Amino acid sequence: MFDRVALIGIGLMGSSLAQALRAYDLAAHISGCDSSAVTRARATKLGIVDQMEEDPALVVADADLVVLCTPVGAYGALAAAFGPAVKPGAIVTDVGSVKATMLPEVAPHLTKGVHLIPGHPVAGTESSGPDAGFAELFMDRWCILTPPPEANEAAVSRLSRMWQLVGSTVEVMSAAHHDKVLAITSHLPHLIAYTIVATADDLEGEFKQEHEDNGGVSKSEVIKFSAGGFRDFTRIAASDPIMWRDVFLANKDAVLEMLGRFDEDLTALQRAIRWGDGDALESLFTRTRAIRRGIVDAGQAGTFRAVEESRARDLGGEESD
Amino acid sequence: MFDRVALIGIGLMGSSLAQALRAYDLAAHISGCDSSAVTRARATKLGIVDQMEEDPALVVADADLVVLCTPVGAYGALAAAFGPAVKPGAIVTDVGSVKATMLPEVAPHLTKGVHLIPGHPVAGTESSGPDAGFAELFMDRWCILTPPPEANEAAVSRLSRMWQLVGSTVEVMSAAHHDKVLAITSHLPHLIAYTIVATADDLEGEFKQEHEDNGGVSKSEVIKFSAGGFRDFTRIAASDPIMWRDVFLANKDAVLEMLGRFDEDLTALQRAIRWGDGDALESLFTRTRAIRRGIVDAGQAGTFRAVEESRARDLGGEESD
Repeated sequence: MFDRVALIGIGLMGSSLAQALRAYDLAAHISGCDSSAVTRARATKLGIVDQMEEDPALVVADADLVVLCTPVGAYGALAAAFGPAVKPGAIVTDVGSVKATMLPEVAPHLTKGVHLIPGHPVAGTESSGPDAGFAELFMDRWCILTPPPEANEAAVSRLSRMWQLVGSTVEVMSAAHHDKVLAITSHLPHLIAYTIVATADDLEGEFKQEHEDNGGVSKSEVIKFSAGGFRDFTRIAASDPIMWRDVFLANKDAVLEMLGRFDEDLTALQRAIRWGDGDALESLFTRTRAIRRGIVDAGQAGTFRAVEESRARDLGGEESD
Repeated sequence: MFDRVALIGIGLMGSSLAQALRAYDLAAHISGCDSSAVTRARATKLGIVDQMEEDPALVVADADLVVLCTPVGAYGALAAAFGPAVKPGAIVTDVGSVKATMLPEVAPHLTKGVHLIPGHPVAGTESSGPDAGFAELFMDRWCILTPPPEANEAAVSRLSRMWQLVGSTVEVMSAAHHDKVLAITSHLPHLIAYTIVATADDLEGEFKQEHEDNGGVSKSEVIKFSAGGFRDFTRIAASDPIMWRDVFLANKDAVLEMLGRFDEDLTALQRAIRWGDGDALESLFTRTRAIRRGIVDAGQAGTFRAVEESRARDLGGEESD
């Protein structure tokens, strides 16, 4: 499908994409670059790419497809370095979680005839680094492309086809719309998870003292009793710190808007608890239960379906009580 | 271990406990009661208990162990109904997520010589009803007992032994301490999950209009792109509405305190985003990542470990990007 693919950044996403392109035989040659010497050595040892470089300009030469797989905050500087070396006719895309900043940061550095098509496979895990990658990451997931209105249609089709061949369903929308939808479905959940895990960690000291005063053993109670719901948040809050720092900085306006809405709703619920309004609580909790059903029906509950199936085998119960 | 066990309420917890007691041969006879005719019929059909009644007073007669497995808001009325029928020497316990209200609501209705020992197995799933139960629910989980200072030691030991035999590790603490620890590890996570799912649902209409205006297909984008983090919250927000309504009403003070702390921390993070303070974001995100590691090391990451192991088999990737 592609003769030469260049991946800028070989973390979870770059490594997974390299493995998927190999698994489905979509690239004759894959080159990669990474600013970290440790990552370069590891990716080389794992044999994830055919060629590994430090300089991004070296890997994009002759590439038909260039994929930015770094935190979004690094795009501008990287594009300045590799942009002039991309050949006309090539496609430049990315896998970043924020789309509005990609075009203005990368486009100025590309030569005429290069097709710039921002992209975002809605897939990932809380692990990072080349070892965390696997070819099936994009299977049964959505990939969103946000081509500008003047984008070359053949190039968009070709890139769509690639994502479809690694298992994803492609959806095209505007960058602004993407950033709003992802602000509520991904960025705000991460922000909240990071917050509550830190709040709980701050309480740890107080709990230890109180528990020891009562003759208890001093050990993290927050960790011990995490099966009550907390652990789901810790998994999300274990995601890559740099990647997420960049997401919040790049999608500031949409995240702040969603945070404002969430805060209003949380305040309303807080008031219902304070005033003992059981009907308001029950009615909200009943409504949210139905939404989960929609996600299960849409086949996007992946991990938990797998867990449910493996529950009997592994004796690993889920939680929420 | 017990001659006759009576379970008040045969939902997820009652059904799981009945099946666990059977599986490990810990009760010669198990009786159950439930206020719902549908649940009674279903539990009878599934053969979960030996005897099924509507009247709680009928099932506790001659029981050595009585376990309340209903939402905590129902304890007072139920205890008034069955309390006088419990024989001296029997143990009365529960599985509720709030402990401070159990003793004052139930104790006044019991006769002298009955041992009241509040309990809370920190285990569960987002499913409810007798069909959702399974014998392994308590395996590798913590069970917290909050006996009052004057509790009979032999009775506490006997109840501890039962929870150990169904797979749990028992910890004893005060009811007040339990309610604070669970407010942050379980109640607040549920409250936040319920809130964000409702916030997202309210946005759905706006997204649909915007997407259609751009020529997109009108389908739930919140559900479609839930793999970005949101779906973890929907699972928690699918938990039983009545049970959780009662938890928030019964543990009001501790929940409001934790909510206040969380809100302060979220506001600080909001401010960091607004002012573009990348260092503050990165440092917080790095710290929370370490806490996840603690949970994995403590063996309390159950579901996700199972998922990781089954990933290659099922091609079901996790999310967070």
